[in-house]
Amino acid sequence: MPTSSRISRDRRHGHHRNGVVSTGSRGLIVAVTAILVQAVPAARGLQTDPLPSWNDGASKRAIVAFVERVTKSGSPDFVTPAERIAVFDNDGTLWAEQPLYFQVLFAVDRVRALAPKHPEWQAKEPFASLIKGDTKAALAGGEHALMEIIAAAHAGVSTDEFQVIVKDWLATARHPATGRPYTKMVYQPMLEVLAYLRANGFKTFIVSGGGVEFMRAFAEETYGIPPEQIVGSSGVVTFDLSTGTPRLMKQAKVEFVDDGPGKPAGINRFIGRRPIAAFGNSDGDLQMLQWTAAGQGPRFALYVHHTDAAREWAYDRASHVGHFDKGLDEAKAKGWILVDMKTDWKVIYP
Amino acid sequence: MPTSSRISRDRRHGHHRNGVVSTGSRGLIVAVTAILVQAVPAARGLQTDPLPSWNDGASKRAIVAFVERVTKSGSPDFVTPAERIAVFDNDGTLWAEQPLYFQVLFAVDRVRALAPKHPEWQAKEPFASLIKGDTKAALAGGEHALMEIIAAAHAGVSTDEFQVIVKDWLATARHPATGRPYTKMVYQPMLEVLAYLRANGFKTFIVSGGGVEFMRAFAEETYGIPPEQIVGSSGVVTFDLSTGTPRLMKQAKVEFVDDGPGKPAGINRFIGRRPIAAFGNSDGDLQMLQWTAAGQGPRFALYVHHTDAAREWAYDRASHVGHFDKGLDEAKAKGWILVDMKTDWKVIYP
Repeated sequence: MPTSSRISRDRRHGHHRNGVVSTGSRGLIVAVTAILVQAVPAARGLQTDPLPSWNDGASKRAIVAFVERVTKSGSPDFVTPAERIAVFDNDGTLWAEQPLYFQVLFAVDRVRALAPKHPEWQAKEPFASLIKGDTKAALAGGEHALMEIIAAAHAGVSTDEFQVIVKDWLATARHPATGRPYTKMVYQPMLEVLAYLRANGFKTFIVSGGGVEFMRAFAEETYGIPPEQIVGSSGVVTFDLSTGTPRLMKQAKVEFVDDGPGKPAGINRFIGRRPIAAFGNSDGDLQMLQWTAAGQGPRFALYVHHTDAAREWAYDRASHVGHFDKGLDEAKAKGWILVDMKTDWKVIYP
Repeated sequence: MPTSSRISRDRRHGHHRNGVVSTGSRGLIVAVTAILVQAVPAARGLQTDPLPSWNDGASKRAIVAFVERVTKSGSPDFVTPAERIAVFDNDGTLWAEQPLYFQVLFAVDRVRALAPKHPEWQAKEPFASLIKGDTKAALAGGEHALMEIIAAAHAGVSTDEFQVIVKDWLATARHPATGRPYTKMVYQPMLEVLAYLRANGFKTFIVSGGGVEFMRAFAEETYGIPPEQIVGSSGVVTFDLSTGTPRLMKQAKVEFVDDGPGKPAGINRFIGRRPIAAFGNSDGDLQMLQWTAAGQGPRFALYVHHTDAAREWAYDRASHVGHFDKGLDEAKAKGWILVDMKTDWKVIYP
């Protein structure tokens, strides 16, 4: 009989091998054992379920299987920690994006707040419609109109001032449908994926079409992702010493659009390594997933499919935001993980 | 008498307090003690001198004093590890840069290697002069000529192919004056600063005018700085699926110049936090040092001054590379650390 078995049997019967514990202590031992029996499954549950907000299904199992595969020392699929790069889209992947990208809602609020200082906007679209309260008409001008609004809302201040402006907005603004602060419209199941990956030696990055400075105002606190691990779109910033104090001034000029084919370019520029795992939700993420999946060795590509009209929104091919058409077809063709929000997620928000 | 003193005195006399070691073992004890006496100062030296290649002087003391100041728990100057961002210029700060930036020497070699595929270069400057072997005439065209050479040498290949090309060049090319591989012309004292900062919770970044993909080919192995912590100049890269396999193709078009006022802009874009320590050697680093030094709380700004014509090169205000004029004046005016390579550094290269 192996020693360990003998010890445990001795203990079960209230004996300690060294004879220090007498049979008279049996009552105490039984009580302690009862507590331990209750405690062990709970402790084990914490260890074995890193994704408690995910229903048990193919998506959850695929995430866990991938992490176990690349972290198993000695396995041919083992990936060194330095190469465990995981990239996440933000809008629609880590937080909601309806009825419009939250950064657009910020820009709309900001343009309205700035309007008194810009009388010329009264006669100039898309600003005139925005100021009248007609966001839909303002955005009818398409991407060009959107970029004008974004530029106007993001320029003319220093980077330090901009951080304060965004933080103030996030602290006070509420989502028109849910009434929640925007930072409380992050997806709890995805927060668990971020934490699970980091606990397994991954470095998590955001790679989003959103503005890099906008995201930095909340990503560290909300997602645990530090500023230097955020890749995003950006406007030109210029160094200014005219006041005697160095400042970085935000210009009304687009510098880089981190969307679609811009995402692998942004990954190359900012990260310089090919990720082994990528998470998105729209056609804007397709090239990022293609780039990730085409690397050698184990790869993971996951799309969040917005299927839950009751708890969140249901949209894909026809949506004006989070347009998901080619990506949906390619995910199915290539066997990428397609998260069904309605059935895969126990909860949506924290 | 404290217990420890008594024990050591007992040991010195060849007695063990428990009586296990008899006086007959004295010969052995004396021998062991002699070894220990020799070993202890060496071990202590390792602990207390993180910068053994630096002569004891104001520069070394300032580096150590700053690190101790920001890492001392409970001190008003304590900086949380997340904010311990240190940025380093590369050319002239971490490795040599004479007679030309090493990346220019790479580009010259590359243009010559590519010349047979580009008959049109025979009649086009700056290429014609380069192919004839007259680098000086080719570079007489100034920054425009230089950028044309850089673009030609860096474009038309995928990012993956480019990594191989640079690594092959670094493995075989030798410096015209020293005969060393370029990666053996890094500064040993600066390698020690990098390691010392990291050992104290700093995250070390390169912020260089050099090409980001060029530096990534050697920075991790040479400096211990991973790709995602390298900020540099870049060319446009485009995502290409025309072969069926996703590739990132390098274009002959400048995207971002990470030099001068571009350095704080690059820091903002890539890192998103203001560094607390910055290291440079030329006017191209001045705005980075200004930006770093102007932050609140403890700040550290250091310039390497190339003063050693015998072991390296001596140059500053009149140099065509590493031009150091306004920066030299400002360093003196603001009391930034000015490393005198000749007197501060015991050795130059590893």
